[in-house]
Amino acid sequence: MTHPPLPKTARGRQRREQILRAAERVIGRKGYSDASIADITAEAHTALGTFYIYFGSKEDVFTQLVAEMGRMTRRVLSDVAAASGDRLEAERRGLLAFLQFVQERPELYRIVEEARFVNPPAYRAYFTTFAAAYREGLETAAAEGEISPGDAEVRAWALMGMAKTLGERYVLWNDGTPLDHVADEAFRMIRDGLGTGHG
Amino acid sequence: MTHPPLPKTARGRQRREQILRAAERVIGRKGYSDASIADITAEAHTALGTFYIYFGSKEDVFTQLVAEMGRMTRRVLSDVAAASGDRLEAERRGLLAFLQFVQERPELYRIVEEARFVNPPAYRAYFTTFAAAYREGLETAAAEGEISPGDAEVRAWALMGMAKTLGERYVLWNDGTPLDHVADEAFRMIRDGLGTGHG
Repeated sequence: MTHPPLPKTARGRQRREQILRAAERVIGRKGYSDASIADITAEAHTALGTFYIYFGSKEDVFTQLVAEMGRMTRRVLSDVAAASGDRLEAERRGLLAFLQFVQERPELYRIVEEARFVNPPAYRAYFTTFAAAYREGLETAAAEGEISPGDAEVRAWALMGMAKTLGERYVLWNDGTPLDHVADEAFRMIRDGLGTGHG
Repeated sequence: MTHPPLPKTARGRQRREQILRAAERVIGRKGYSDASIADITAEAHTALGTFYIYFGSKEDVFTQLVAEMGRMTRRVLSDVAAASGDRLEAERRGLLAFLQFVQERPELYRIVEEARFVNPPAYRAYFTTFAAAYREGLETAAAEGEISPGDAEVRAWALMGMAKTLGERYVLWNDGTPLDHVADEAFRMIRDGLGTGHG
């Protein structure tokens, strides 16, 4: 998939960003196949042809959005980890930060999920890249005695799945449950488990 | 969405089942929009018109498959729960049984995920129905002291998300990791948590 080089001027970068945000809203709401480039440029208040100065195709802009969600969530979580005293605190704060991010950018969540069908390699790369960083964090924490030992790969995927599904249930299908309650309850299970200690 | 009544004869039920299984394979592999009714009847070795004796439309057969996945996974998990000594054992065995089910019927997994886009109400009903039963099981177990107390709704969704994502990573993207290892490791985290007990 080819795409034009990134714009060199501030004005160009601003125009590109404007189209990217419009694409996020339009594709996130209508879904990939129903969203047209004309819908995107209408939403961005630009001429249809302007789209092609910045993006090669609808698939190109879609894939850029998936990559952006990846960069942003990884940055949010690494900021949270840096601000946390230990790995368990990073888990609790990271889960809440992820849910809040989904609340701010619900269309990006949907776009990543739709990538499973629209661009399976991009979908898989998204989660695999994410899991690799997560796994490393868990391994370091286990080596330093901050968490119990265990298979960090299985744990990373299990924890990502948990966050992803809680995001869908409590943010996209929002029923008013406060997100800090959701994060606290899920975190208690992550930290202490369901066991009663006398099973 | 309308669909014809269920067939009354054994031969009719068999024919309907044959088309349903063909639809599972074709839609699961090609995706909903690329799969045509002609593809499905070719896979089922029946005439195109036969499809309409049993199903109203492609959406109808798709929705039947989502409902079937729901019935089958609920049945597998309730059998597992009945055969388990307590809730924690049911969690461990249920997770493994789910992963094994995904291994046997990978196309059904993909169809349920695609329902998020093709038929959002069916997707949501699938997980909401599932979560309601799961929540009830967790509440009963907590009341009986088999597991620690906690918000059963948050836990049910967190645990479903975990199973779903492990199914994708270790079954659909199979890298040869034995499923019983995956289930055991995830279960240890579910039972004991990541905490070291001295945090």
